[in-house]
Amino acid sequence: MTSSFFPPQRTLMGPGPSDVSPRVLGALARPTIGHLDPLFVQLMDEIKELLQYAFQTENPLTLPVSAPGSAGMEACFVNLLSPGDKVIVCQNGVFGGRMQENVERCGATAVMVQDDWGQAVSVDRVAQAFADHPDAAVLAFVHAETSTGVRSDARALCALAREHNALSIVDAVTSLGGIELKVDEWGADAVYSGTQKCLSCVPGISPVTFSPAAVDRIQNREHKVQSWFLDMQLVMGYWGGSSKRAYHHTAPVNDLYALHESLLMLREEGLTAAFARHRHNHRALVAGLEAMGLSMAVAEPHRLPQLNAVNIPEGVDDAGVRGALLRDFNLEIGAGLGALAGKTWRIGLMGFSSSEQNVLACLTALEAVLSAQGADISRGAAQAAAGAVFSGR
Amino acid sequence: MTSSFFPPQRTLMGPGPSDVSPRVLGALARPTIGHLDPLFVQLMDEIKELLQYAFQTENPLTLPVSAPGSAGMEACFVNLLSPGDKVIVCQNGVFGGRMQENVERCGATAVMVQDDWGQAVSVDRVAQAFADHPDAAVLAFVHAETSTGVRSDARALCALAREHNALSIVDAVTSLGGIELKVDEWGADAVYSGTQKCLSCVPGISPVTFSPAAVDRIQNREHKVQSWFLDMQLVMGYWGGSSKRAYHHTAPVNDLYALHESLLMLREEGLTAAFARHRHNHRALVAGLEAMGLSMAVAEPHRLPQLNAVNIPEGVDDAGVRGALLRDFNLEIGAGLGALAGKTWRIGLMGFSSSEQNVLACLTALEAVLSAQGADISRGAAQAAAGAVFSGR
Repeated sequence: MTSSFFPPQRTLMGPGPSDVSPRVLGALARPTIGHLDPLFVQLMDEIKELLQYAFQTENPLTLPVSAPGSAGMEACFVNLLSPGDKVIVCQNGVFGGRMQENVERCGATAVMVQDDWGQAVSVDRVAQAFADHPDAAVLAFVHAETSTGVRSDARALCALAREHNALSIVDAVTSLGGIELKVDEWGADAVYSGTQKCLSCVPGISPVTFSPAAVDRIQNREHKVQSWFLDMQLVMGYWGGSSKRAYHHTAPVNDLYALHESLLMLREEGLTAAFARHRHNHRALVAGLEAMGLSMAVAEPHRLPQLNAVNIPEGVDDAGVRGALLRDFNLEIGAGLGALAGKTWRIGLMGFSSSEQNVLACLTALEAVLSAQGADISRGAAQAAAGAVFSGR
Repeated sequence: MTSSFFPPQRTLMGPGPSDVSPRVLGALARPTIGHLDPLFVQLMDEIKELLQYAFQTENPLTLPVSAPGSAGMEACFVNLLSPGDKVIVCQNGVFGGRMQENVERCGATAVMVQDDWGQAVSVDRVAQAFADHPDAAVLAFVHAETSTGVRSDARALCALAREHNALSIVDAVTSLGGIELKVDEWGADAVYSGTQKCLSCVPGISPVTFSPAAVDRIQNREHKVQSWFLDMQLVMGYWGGSSKRAYHHTAPVNDLYALHESLLMLREEGLTAAFARHRHNHRALVAGLEAMGLSMAVAEPHRLPQLNAVNIPEGVDDAGVRGALLRDFNLEIGAGLGALAGKTWRIGLMGFSSSEQNVLACLTALEAVLSAQGADISRGAAQAAAGAVFSGR
């Protein structure tokens, strides 16, 4: 007989969701009010401002889409593309492939620029694609590839798009709040993210921001946006600047309480401090993993501090290790995705999960489980190596 | 300076969201676990079963879409329609118009069957539309029109669709859990709802169910579904029956804790008892409103017990009354929508909001505010009239 569900207290060190702080869970459970309540409208304005801070933008069209990051991605594509458009899509992991799907489902053409999974997007190859396709209307790429743990050079790629009079669509699902993301300074045109990564809010919401050039394209569309739910001209009527908000859909009120609280926490800490914390914990984790004898899957300059791809040692049972971590340590780490399934683990240090305590707990648990599996690792060295980073030695 | 948001404790008697019970808010705030955690996969299975109970269906493809009801609507249209299809769309309020938008954005043609706002969909007119358009592939209608408080005859309309070899798409956003909705017995093919109405869960999720005939049409599509996020063939891979779940998007984990709990509460009470409770509180509210001298906007046989449209008395300041109710009584009732703006109020008695306490509180507050505005109402009679219904006199 089905009864109430009481989840265990996991430590979430996969590719997201990350640990949600008690403060955010507390906000989540506050009493629901109406989505047109004047107090809720005030909250919406505050969320927009807090998102502008997180995105480092003054874009007025900055808001949380009422659905997960995949819907935020789709919102960017369906609003900016029209049938027949040509889009340069960079793929160096799973999410570039999802972008291609989005382009094609808009009746547009994707020109794919492929890089090996685990590599950054090659700026040179993208420049070549623009040279070959000067009529490309949009450049789309992933800033922080969640499937591989790789950071690409968003600044250079956005500049390239500008140079060729194309708009840029940037997947910042895993980057927002974890690494530098300067929407205005870089000239990114449409950027989407998720709440369940470095913002450490509950999953289900997708912050987006659109530049004035992107808004201009949306307002001058000849074809209606193929999605009614994601049509930004309609969504703007509800989230827009005027005091009179037009009903579009019922906002996920409680999730937005939580998002507001998590964005507030980010602003209290400050972006610079948050990025430094992510880097610091990442360095400690890598030091520990390497001391244990494990190797990182991504070359040092392209590593994401918030998502650490680790090569699975030869002969080790991937699912067995992850299962034991979950069962015996309540610790979730991520499997490899797509081409990297069975080859890498993805250890997240995102937002509230990015803490000294989590780094040490993860190293301890991993060492115990790998030892029990008879893996060829160095024992006892990981904690000391991580500790040396933490103590600044 | 922005600080944490502490909403007041409102009584939500508008068209949704409805009051969320402390039990559901408690479930919402439980610790987040991963969307691929084995325990979460079990929870997903339980939610599917509980939704099957609520929908009165054995459809295997019964699941919560990770976005609000508008996205559930869109999921039904984009999965079942292909460009060039002809769809008979019934409009007797705001949401029929939204269906038309969805049809047209799929590249399909909408044949509109119009009824006056406040009237039920005319089954005869729909029969005529099928006679005029025997090639119609789909019939779409709203079971419980949230904008007017009207119930249409879903059983007869679904039967008509079957008779003409068309699939039916049924908007059950406001009906699920509040009035009879027998998906299998009526032969409805694609039905969507929302969590924030008679389920009294937090807003943001849309339960949907698809009949075997609908699944067959989805699996034999020639065109890819235009929405990647809402493509049921992909969503099925994550929510589907196999033990190996394919990642599609990150599920809104905490919202699903809450949905699970609210569905559990519905099953504990039982559908029959829940429907009777909605009817009983509705009768008491109507008795009180009429004793006060107000009149209902919808003819008795078509009234929704969970959403009561009341005519705004001549000379009364619509926004002023709603503002005073909110400010002085923390009570939210709904404005009229679309053609009924300024003409009606919508008083919801949905799910957890459908209680004797709320009926009496609403009558008291409304009487006080209308009196203060100098409206021509009978004082002191409403409570007694409602009380008589409650005590069965």
